[in-house]
Amino acid sequence: MKVSGKDYRTIWMDGRSVYMIDQNLLPFEFKIFRSDDYLTSCRAIREMTVRGAGAIGAAAGFAMAQAFQMASPGSVKSFVDKAFQEIISTRPTARNLFYAVERVFKAGTRHTTKALMEAQAVADEDADASRKIGRLGNRLIKDGSRIETHCNAGWLAFVDYGTALSPVYTAQEEGKTVFVWVDETRPRSQGARLTAWELRNQGIPHKIIPDNAGAWIMKKGMVDLMIVGADRIAANGDVANKIGTLEKAIAAREFGIPFYVAAPTSTFDLTCGSGDEIVIEERSQDEVLYTHGISKNGKQDTILTCSPGSEAFNPAFDVTPAPYITSIITEKGIIRPNSKEINKILKP
Amino acid sequence: MKVSGKDYRTIWMDGRSVYMIDQNLLPFEFKIFRSDDYLTSCRAIREMTVRGAGAIGAAAGFAMAQAFQMASPGSVKSFVDKAFQEIISTRPTARNLFYAVERVFKAGTRHTTKALMEAQAVADEDADASRKIGRLGNRLIKDGSRIETHCNAGWLAFVDYGTALSPVYTAQEEGKTVFVWVDETRPRSQGARLTAWELRNQGIPHKIIPDNAGAWIMKKGMVDLMIVGADRIAANGDVANKIGTLEKAIAAREFGIPFYVAAPTSTFDLTCGSGDEIVIEERSQDEVLYTHGISKNGKQDTILTCSPGSEAFNPAFDVTPAPYITSIITEKGIIRPNSKEINKILKP
Repeated sequence: MKVSGKDYRTIWMDGRSVYMIDQNLLPFEFKIFRSDDYLTSCRAIREMTVRGAGAIGAAAGFAMAQAFQMASPGSVKSFVDKAFQEIISTRPTARNLFYAVERVFKAGTRHTTKALMEAQAVADEDADASRKIGRLGNRLIKDGSRIETHCNAGWLAFVDYGTALSPVYTAQEEGKTVFVWVDETRPRSQGARLTAWELRNQGIPHKIIPDNAGAWIMKKGMVDLMIVGADRIAANGDVANKIGTLEKAIAAREFGIPFYVAAPTSTFDLTCGSGDEIVIEERSQDEVLYTHGISKNGKQDTILTCSPGSEAFNPAFDVTPAPYITSIITEKGIIRPNSKEINKILKP
Repeated sequence: MKVSGKDYRTIWMDGRSVYMIDQNLLPFEFKIFRSDDYLTSCRAIREMTVRGAGAIGAAAGFAMAQAFQMASPGSVKSFVDKAFQEIISTRPTARNLFYAVERVFKAGTRHTTKALMEAQAVADEDADASRKIGRLGNRLIKDGSRIETHCNAGWLAFVDYGTALSPVYTAQEEGKTVFVWVDETRPRSQGARLTAWELRNQGIPHKIIPDNAGAWIMKKGMVDLMIVGADRIAANGDVANKIGTLEKAIAAREFGIPFYVAAPTSTFDLTCGSGDEIVIEERSQDEVLYTHGISKNGKQDTILTCSPGSEAFNPAFDVTPAPYITSIITEKGIIRPNSKEINKILKP
């Protein structure tokens, strides 16, 4: 997608280096972060320089490829085994991370030089799947649709195009008028910071709302449909996604508003029978207590916004049970969230 | 209630001056704001130096009394008529404001010097009602209860004790162990700033959660009951309260968690047949786009936390339909949210 008129992917590899848009600096600064070794790439995942299911997957795949490139000929196995463990322990919830690392690891084990090709394939397939999700999901969007979204499942969360926002971008390309309600998505405010930034760059009308306003605007008839992304989808269609997704899904069902999840098939994890088996990452309470932004003097600042001395609880994701979800938009078709339809597209 | 060991009310009048805890400075600075005339008191209400249903009511009553004190003997009627209009137009949603101003206005019309006595009575009755709500609501709290609350309906929102938090304070006095989940309550973060500050001053264990985590902790069985306040309650039991209340009430019902509203009878407005007739205040988008807090250097700062150039939508309240509410805790008893039970306690 375009940034100030120039085409970018969220993450890419060139030689031994991985390049990524530094998402901790957005929306206040646009800067490319370069990682020359797999440990730096691991840190970038852990510290959320790169975030979002698909982008994390691509980063992890590239990190695995870097590890193969860095290994000394005599000790490849022990080096990449250790790297494998380090990479998969960076973030626990996103399925794409494990999917990518496993593919690149297997390819590299067959032939070390295959690792980079496989990592590139993982990234390209992610972008391609996102594009297809956009084309399929576009059918759900009418001219004039008002779409609510949570967190950021736009192109910054993937290699390109995104998932939840990809249908919106396709709808715009096809000349439809669309409007997006952007959930702020505390505590990290990926909606207010990243989704709003993406939409503004693409010229799509939108407004940021506090997460608290979601049910209210649905009740007032101001939302036609909701589309969110996913970090992991269990075999029964339960969806792990950014904290707050569950609350919106419950409200959407209450008010009869279609609630769609957009995700590539790489997000499905058939080893998880249901959402109960998905590990939910708990992150630092500082993400709730402190907020980062830009002062009136133009300098970036991190401020304490809560009562000093109080503690916070910060689960990063939640699980939305399948019955709350209208459909899942994948690159292979729009399906109902149940094991039969999931199996049909995953095991053709 | 106590601040650093000293007893305070949220707001009080002495001579011609109204004194109030400046709630825009909390939790980072504790300071008393003094208003010597009714226009300054109006500004304090509008700019939320004083906020919360009961405290706004007391402030408005005191402002009306100030107007009677300020009027020249020859032109009392035109002066107080104008003041009446100005005071009731400061904030649109809280019932208590209208209730207090009308009472003080009527008393002052009979005899100017009665205005102050009536304003004082309104404030004392508010504190008294809050205390009774605490004693009644305490019956709903078991030893070990984990209580979720939204926004701030503690003593800072009233003249003393509060509504939603008053039962918690009573439970503590009676030796029960209680734990409070404090919804951050964006955009103004009254939960993270004021409720957390109150609870910490009273030594009650609590944790702040992002608003997005509400449904998730309910689903995980971490919440035993939820208590919130109210800004206005319609004749059929529909409740207007801080934005996000609706979303929590829907989630609570979904997971079978009792959802209580605590409010004095002055919050009921029988002229509103249902919640559809309650005016919802829309506040400046800057409350969403900018966040106030304290920098690491100890200085207060206001920072932009959203993507520059994007706009926001900021409805300050929402309406929770009666069917989502388990009971309403009033100073005259705990009732079901329906017109029959409401009429019974309002028209004895």
